[in-house]
Amino acid sequence: MKFRCAVVMAVLAVTVAAAAAVPASAAAPVYDADGRLIPPSDYREWIFLSSGLDMSYRARGGDDMHMFDNVFVKPEAYRAFQDTGTWPDQTVLVMEVRGARSKGSINKRGQFQTTEGMGMELHVKDTARFAGGWAFFAGDGNGPAAQIPFQAECYSCHREHGAVDTTFVQFYPTLLPLAEKKGTLSAAYLKDKDGAEAAK
Amino acid sequence: MKFRCAVVMAVLAVTVAAAAAVPASAAAPVYDADGRLIPPSDYREWIFLSSGLDMSYRARGGDDMHMFDNVFVKPEAYRAFQDTGTWPDQTVLVMEVRGARSKGSINKRGQFQTTEGMGMELHVKDTARFAGGWAFFAGDGNGPAAQIPFQAECYSCHREHGAVDTTFVQFYPTLLPLAEKKGTLSAAYLKDKDGAEAAK
Repeated sequence: MKFRCAVVMAVLAVTVAAAAAVPASAAAPVYDADGRLIPPSDYREWIFLSSGLDMSYRARGGDDMHMFDNVFVKPEAYRAFQDTGTWPDQTVLVMEVRGARSKGSINKRGQFQTTEGMGMELHVKDTARFAGGWAFFAGDGNGPAAQIPFQAECYSCHREHGAVDTTFVQFYPTLLPLAEKKGTLSAAYLKDKDGAEAAK
Repeated sequence: MKFRCAVVMAVLAVTVAAAAAVPASAAAPVYDADGRLIPPSDYREWIFLSSGLDMSYRARGGDDMHMFDNVFVKPEAYRAFQDTGTWPDQTVLVMEVRGARSKGSINKRGQFQTTEGMGMELHVKDTARFAGGWAFFAGDGNGPAAQIPFQAECYSCHREHGAVDTTFVQFYPTLLPLAEKKGTLSAAYLKDKDGAEAAK
């Protein structure tokens, strides 16, 4: 997960029909009675995968506002990835979106991250719950996050371009070499020559 | 620590006179017989503080190459900061410098982090060892890191502008509000109006 779905804002109001679930363990994703995901309160103590600035799959627009994306994963899932090169069930990836600023304190160039939170997206692997295994959720980071409907383009884009199990491991520099070594890179990624050249 | 010392390359060859030390605990910084710091092998599992792109206290230059800085801190030190708003003895901050790239896989704009490691700086609080409490070390991340001499400008700049205990907490968005709340912001930072406006 490294790209904000362009349709997120339009679909957040869509009602998601899903039953409440009881987590299988304390480490499992937690949903409310409306099927919304409760964001983990301690994700800033999870394992950091990478950050990007103003990343986009669109060539145009957005040059007047800058944002960082920070991606974190649950430690249990990270450790399983170290062993296997892929994600276990109940993996949760958190993408925190944060303001960027150039001038402040002694900084004069480039961009640093500010205290301004600008949203959160979560990518959850819960095979007992979701057809296809994974679902995306979006929110402001402070309350429950609504599921993004399966027809949104995030799902097809991640399926068609994700390097490992529909996730954008090509943008996670410490995981990409592991996946190469373990032979877990997706066929979709390997046949995408631009993708295969990424992050090298 | 958020700024690469401009003098690092020039001073890395300087011999640092320091005796070998036995760490007080497994969590303590580890030095070799020449006083170089052994980089922690597991810092990517430490707590992420922030990242920046091309940050610099110089207004000019460097526009043709892009780099991300990722800063991590030892979990024990992070937890102490949550309680106190400042750093305990034996804090280690790691700044990993990493390549940035715009076009790759499906990305068309902005910058993402690549697998290219471009160096590492470490900022260590070891009051029994260093006059002033802290020292900087620089290396390539793969072997022992040489201490940067105390006369280098990193030390004076961090003393004169660091928001908390000579560290650039003004660029660590989850820690700055904590330091404000705990009243641990430095006088140097508070009297620096530009600094006080940073990251807001």
